[in-house]
This record gives sequence, C-alpha cells and structure tokens, in this order.
Amino acid sequence: MGTNFERYRVKAGTKVDLGKEPTRGDDAYGGDKDAGYARLDALRDEIAELQDRLYAEEKHKVLIVLQAMDTAGKDSTIRDVFKETNPQGVRVASFGRPTDEELAHDYLWRVHKYTPAAGHIRVFNRSHYEDVLVVRVNELVPEDRWKRRYGHIRDFERLLVDEGTTIRKFFLHISKDEQRERLQERLDIKEKHWKFESGDLRVRERWDDYMAAYADAIKETSTVDAPWYIIPSDRRWYRKLAVAEIVLETLKDLDPKYPDPPDNLHHIAIPD
Amino acid sequence: MGTNFERYRVKAGTKVDLGKEPTRGDDAYGGDKDAGYARLDALRDEIAELQDRLYAEEKHKVLIVLQAMDTAGKDSTIRDVFKETNPQGVRVASFGRPTDEELAHDYLWRVHKYTPAAGHIRVFNRSHYEDVLVVRVNELVPEDRWKRRYGHIRDFERLLVDEGTTIRKFFLHISKDEQRERLQERLDIKEKHWKFESGDLRVRERWDDYMAAYADAIKETSTVDAPWYIIPSDRRWYRKLAVAEIVLETLKDLDPKYPDPPDNLHHIAIPD
Repeated sequence: MGTNFERYRVKAGTKVDLGKEPTRGDDAYGGDKDAGYARLDALRDEIAELQDRLYAEEKHKVLIVLQAMDTAGKDSTIRDVFKETNPQGVRVASFGRPTDEELAHDYLWRVHKYTPAAGHIRVFNRSHYEDVLVVRVNELVPEDRWKRRYGHIRDFERLLVDEGTTIRKFFLHISKDEQRERLQERLDIKEKHWKFESGDLRVRERWDDYMAAYADAIKETSTVDAPWYIIPSDRRWYRKLAVAEIVLETLKDLDPKYPDPPDNLHHIAIPD
Repeated sequence: MGTNFERYRVKAGTKVDLGKEPTRGDDAYGGDKDAGYARLDALRDEIAELQDRLYAEEKHKVLIVLQAMDTAGKDSTIRDVFKETNPQGVRVASFGRPTDEELAHDYLWRVHKYTPAAGHIRVFNRSHYEDVLVVRVNELVPEDRWKRRYGHIRDFERLLVDEGTTIRKFFLHISKDEQRERLQERLDIKEKHWKFESGDLRVRERWDDYMAAYADAIKETSTVDAPWYIIPSDRRWYRKLAVAEIVLETLKDLDPKYPDPPDNLHHIAIPD
C-alpha cells in the first residue's frame, strides 16, 4: 500500500528542525523496495500522460525545485521521475557557480530567465535558494543582505504563482552517515570516480551550518502556494517514489485537458 | 537660474491627480528656451563624465524608466539626455507588444532580463508599467489580476534596489491639446509621416482612462527608493532639462569613482 506523502509538506509558518525530520523512509509498500519501484514505473507513465496534456493545453506553468546536500540524489531523482516525459515540454535548469555576468545582476536575474512558460514543466537542479545557503555559510554577502532575501524569494514566488505558475519545492534529506557512505562509494567504484569532487568534503565539514541554513530557508519560504517538502532520502527508491507521487498529485490537481478541436474538423479533406 | 526639479517627485503614499499636475513648465531660466538648451548641453557632458566613472567602477546599477502618452517625447528625451554617454555602458530597452514567448511567462520575465548590470545605466522606453496601463485600459487581464501587479512591481523594484540598483521613473506629462497638435504635425509634415500610427488615435480616445490608470500606477508604486517624477512635458526643452537635471543629481549622489590603480603601476615597463 501507498502512504500519505503530503505529510512531508512544511506548513507555512512552521518551525523546522531538520535533526528531527526523518532521513530514512520505509513506510510504503511495507518497506518493499521492489514494490516501490513497480509503483514508480506506473507513476512515471501517469506523469508523462498528464505532461502531454499540460503541454497541449498551454495554460499552466509548473516549477519543481530540488535542493539537497551532495550525493542526496537530485540528478537521479530528476531522471527517474521525468524520464518518460517529452523533453520538449520538460526542461531542467541547473544552477552552478554564477558567471561574472550573473554576479553583475541581482541573484534572481539568472533564475527568472529559466522559469517555465505556459504548458511547460521546469525542474530546477539547485536554484535561487543557493543564495541563502552556500552564500550564507561561506559569508559571500553580509548577513543583513542574505536575510532580506527570504522576503525577495517569497515575493518572487508569489509573482510566479499569481501569474499562473504551480510551484513545488523538495529538500532531499539525507543523514550525514549516509553521505559518508556515498562519498566513499565514489572513491571506491571506478564508474563513480567522475562524480567525486574534493570540494564536496569542504561542504561536508560545514554540515551543521548547512542544516541550519536549510532549516531557516525552508521555514521562511514554505508558503501555501509554494510549499517545501522534506523528503527522507537515505533510501533511493523511497525518495524517488515520494517525489513522483507528489508531482503526480500536483499535475492531477491541475487537471490539464487537450484543447477542443475546431468544430469543423470532420469537414476537412486533406488534398492529394 | 535653475529650478528645483525634485519637487516633481511623487512622495510615497501621496494621492495623484494628474489633472492638477502641470503639463507646461517654464519656471527655469525665466522661461528662456535658449538658456535651457545651453544648460542641457552642459548637463549632458556632466552626465557622460559620471557615466564613465560608473562604468569603470562596476559597482552601481542604474535603471531609468520612461512612460508617457504618445508624442510626449520619450524617444527624444532619451536621445537628448544620454547622447554624450558611451553606448557600451548605457543601453535602451524598448518594450512593445509582447511576443508569444513573452506572453507565455509572467509579465516581469521579459523586463527582468534587461535590468542593468553593475556599472551600467539601462533606460526603459516603456516598461512593466504597461502591464497596469494598456493592459488595464483594454481589459487584457481581469481587474483582480492587474490590481495584484502593483504589489508585484513594488516587490520587484525592492529586490533590484536591495541588490544594488538605483531606480528613477519618469512620467512625461502632456496635455491632451498638446498631443492633438503633435499628432497633427505628424500628418502635416512629410518628414514626420513615418511616426504616425492610426492606433495612436484609438489610444487618444481613451485619454481619461489612461490618465486614471497612470494616476493609480504612480500612486501605488512611487516609493522612497524607486520614485516617480511627473515631468511637465508640453515644452520640449523644459522636459529634457528636467529629466537631465534629475539624472545628473542621481549620478552625483552615487559618487562613482575610477578604481584605484594597482600600487606598482609605475614599476611596469611595457616590453618593446
């Protein structure tokens, strides 16, 4: 049996203590991984079907934000939730270190460009939240400046919502122990070497600072219309399943429909 | 003698009645047009000098917004205030009818792209304000939707200001009689024929609706850090002079400075 993944939604105004939020989920399908993956297969098809309608309808805009510590599985979540969809209507925007031109503008400038058009799903692999996460932890701007950003971000997402965007934000929550194992795998397994970056270890050293920054960011910006979900992510199948279920529910609520054909379609004869 | 153009600034929270705001200014240089133009010449050089420093310093971002009814002189104001500046650091963005791609996004999407980078002056010839002006008058979106936009716009400009942008907004205010004369000129003078568009007459028919829309937009969005100025614009020289004086004061307040050279510059020998 499934489970109620909506309980991972952070209600607006709630205090967030990530130390108390589960990182390991196994309460779906009696913890049976194979059953979970079977369900994920079915979810993918349903998501793809609804995405096709969404694209045809050209009415709703959908923005999915993924944030997480390294190794938590942002990339594989994107792949495994959206791989049956049409890439023409589903695009991923990855936000790494900003370019000089991006730094010369406000921090939402580069992000706004990539917000979805009507009919599209856009997935943010990292996002404007880095500007209150890594920027805060590494003190790249003064505190009074990053603190004002919570308000900017709420306002920005409010604009998007008011103008027709549906927003869901996911924090893929792993434990520090689980991260150690995954980083070790990247050192041990030849095919995973390419994923290893020594910079990840410096980020890991600041684990507690990042948890504090995430907790504040989630608390300050989880709103009724642009909610955060804290997804237990130590188990891969559970994390993907949870995100897929929530994405599917989101699309179902939008109830996208193929547009009506013009009335006279059956009168049209295709010329030889 | 000059005059205090700061009095055209709309204080935050003030009610705006455009019927009571002057469209004809002549209280500078005793109304002497030639003296006004001589001063404008000097202002242009000062503006260009400060713009060069601003560009070199790469610190401040400056956004100038121009809005007006047709024929009020947006284009010639831009030309005559900025023509001595370096086009590399001063760019104009003109916002006409949105493209399909622009319409598929929120209305600030196309505008945000063109906000200035550090060291740059960006002039908006029309702007996001059209989304509470022409959009309102022609009922292109429902009232509850355009009414929410005042808040979006305040939030958006607040973001820009918090992240280092200086904003000045100008409404070039002409009388309906003056517009009639100028439209007639476009019909009468061969070299001005190209400027005439019959659509301008349809806009003129809705004059009072536009005045009401402008009054609300200015009242709702004139803030301490992103103020509107209502510039009497029936007299061309006075309008250009007023904008140039305010732009110059704005740049002076930023006090841009050429960056210090590296200490050891005088030790450097250029190789043959």
